[in-house]
Amino acid sequence: FDVARIAVVAGDGIGTEVVAQARKVIDAVLPGVTATEYDLGAARYHRTGEVLPDSVLAELAEHDAILLGAVGDPSVPPGVLERGLLLKLRFAFDQYVNLRPSRLWPGTASPLAQVKPGEIDFVVVREGTEGLYAGAGGTLHRDTPAEVATEESLNTRHGVERVIRDAFGRAQRRERRKVTLVHKTNVLTHAGSLWSRAFEAVKADFPDVETEYQHVDAAAMYLVTQPQRYDVVVTDNLFGDILTDIAAAVTGGIGLAASGCINPSREFPSMFEPVHGSAPDIAGKGLADPVAAVLSASLLLDHLGHADEARRVTEAVAAELASRTPGTPLRTAEIGDRLAAAASA
Amino acid sequence: FDVARIAVVAGDGIGTEVVAQARKVIDAVLPGVTATEYDLGAARYHRTGEVLPDSVLAELAEHDAILLGAVGDPSVPPGVLERGLLLKLRFAFDQYVNLRPSRLWPGTASPLAQVKPGEIDFVVVREGTEGLYAGAGGTLHRDTPAEVATEESLNTRHGVERVIRDAFGRAQRRERRKVTLVHKTNVLTHAGSLWSRAFEAVKADFPDVETEYQHVDAAAMYLVTQPQRYDVVVTDNLFGDILTDIAAAVTGGIGLAASGCINPSREFPSMFEPVHGSAPDIAGKGLADPVAAVLSASLLLDHLGHADEARRVTEAVAAELASRTPGTPLRTAEIGDRLAAAASA
Ligand SMILES: CC(C)[C@H](C(=O)O)[C@@H](O)C(=O)O
Ligand SMILES: CC(C)[C@H](C(=O)O)[C@@H](O)C(=O)O
Repeated sequence: FDVARIAVVAGDGIGTEVVAQARKVIDAVLPGVTATEYDLGAARYHRTGEVLPDSVLAELAEHDAILLGAVGDPSVPPGVLERGLLLKLRFAFDQYVNLRPSRLWPGTASPLAQVKPGEIDFVVVREGTEGLYAGAGGTLHRDTPAEVATEESLNTRHGVERVIRDAFGRAQRRERRKVTLVHKTNVLTHAGSLWSRAFEAVKADFPDVETEYQHVDAAAMYLVTQPQRYDVVVTDNLFGDILTDIAAAVTGGIGLAASGCINPSREFPSMFEPVHGSAPDIAGKGLADPVAAVLSASLLLDHLGHADEARRVTEAVAAELASRTPGTPLRTAEIGDRLAAAASA
Repeated sequence: FDVARIAVVAGDGIGTEVVAQARKVIDAVLPGVTATEYDLGAARYHRTGEVLPDSVLAELAEHDAILLGAVGDPSVPPGVLERGLLLKLRFAFDQYVNLRPSRLWPGTASPLAQVKPGEIDFVVVREGTEGLYAGAGGTLHRDTPAEVATEESLNTRHGVERVIRDAFGRAQRRERRKVTLVHKTNVLTHAGSLWSRAFEAVKADFPDVETEYQHVDAAAMYLVTQPQRYDVVVTDNLFGDILTDIAAAVTGGIGLAASGCINPSREFPSMFEPVHGSAPDIAGKGLADPVAAVLSASLLLDHLGHADEARRVTEAVAAELASRTPGTPLRTAEIGDRLAAAASA
């Protein structure tokens, strides 16, 4: 009997380094987790030409969750690993809730002059299986003056409603109980109308949750000028991609941002990964900050029902960040050791 | 013989107030401009049900440029004025260069702690006639569980190449001579590939211009963490919509942001407007800041070949902003008078 079976995709660059720390922390707070490593990413692609063999996809499906480091390298053409690996997993495992919490932790500096630690605390629920990420596009008359290229955003009532319902559920469990819908209803009138109508319908089931709507351009602005105003933000796949990077920027950078690609039904495994990439420039030097990977492990623990362990990991991170002296170099493995010790204490 | 024939669409809310100041300034620096007012926007829509009659469109086409204040009101359903008026004009007059300069003016505070006035100075060249703004979308099985809604991004080699060429031309006339292409080539592989290949092709004609590429999510982040790095940014219609609002946020807010919807061929009139909206909450009180409208007038003058007058208007604005005492209430008409006097001195 296993506590949990986790597939580990450390990936490329600093992925391996930060995932090692996340595993240390998981093992410390929840002994008995079985971890199986899968070699996927740019390195494997260059070695074998394979991105995600069907047999590996089938094996991954047998796990309770996937812990991912970072995949990618400038040497791989754009789209190959994104579409063939990351997005393939999100779609194959129907991970429709792309969860991205943003907090300005004590001890962390925001680039924003007026915002103090503790004041930013929201979560973006980004749709993960539809929209412009559906891969519905084409090209005609390539490399001629008549070339036309299309990308289609596909949105279903099924897909939109379920992610909005998830966002309302999360808001109900938070203190402020507020959901902001972000879209561009004034231009994308078809998809915008679907999102708005589904939002109104779900809202009726959550009378205790406050709601608001913002256009994506306004939201992008307010994330810079008033990030304190947000509690739960729900939005489509591409808008969520952009907004969560702004959110990361105002809370101290993607070096600290965690994410979960979640299938709330647990029919398929959910996937947890730091938002940062493989950072080839600092890879192999033991200088990467493992905090985003460790916070992703906390989301993983929470998803698997270990809320207490998840909270202890988050608190260990909060204490670690609060104790940092700006300018002191980071040592990946030492931070992992400290976090593992603090979380299991 | 007219110096220039301008159509004025003051619009709703503070639109009328700020446009009046922009006209004062134009008249002061370039006597002899003929201005014809057109009543369009939310007020007219409510009064007559009309958004943009064909006869008005035909009349507008006869002008050298359009000066627009702001249209819109929460009482109008989303999309009616946007698609029926603003976007209709952009498309009908083939305004493919949506130009949005961003400067952190001396005297203006950025929400960013580390950025000083003078350090941010870039311009976004946003494509204005294609992409997801084409209006190519649809809905099936509306209001049923089977509903699907689509939005299609349409991109042509013709449309993409011409706006990229415009961006390179602008970069060549600036000091740093750098163009950043922003897209999402790793996910939107069809449109992304078209944009990338067109960019490479145009770049060959501008060997003295430095180039870089960024994904839109990364660019959204860097606009917050390192806005100083940008010179000219070229991007698609929707990405440009979002990025320019971030740019406005980091340079003191949309209250200061100007824009031009430009048809460089001058076959049809170009349109100049502040990025801010009609702000019904402060309308009619004489409290709106006319600076964005006046800077839009400067773009208009420049487009019509009056570079000297445009520069004087911009310098008047710079002096006005530098002289402001934070906390002092703004008086729309007084600011207009001061700017007109300074620009014509
Ligand atoms: C790598 C890329 C496919 C991905 C996305 O666009 O979703 C990334 O930007 C993210 O936010 O997880
Ligand atoms: C009002 C709206 C149609 C418009 C746009 O999306 O282009 C606005 O946001 C802008 O940036 O000019």
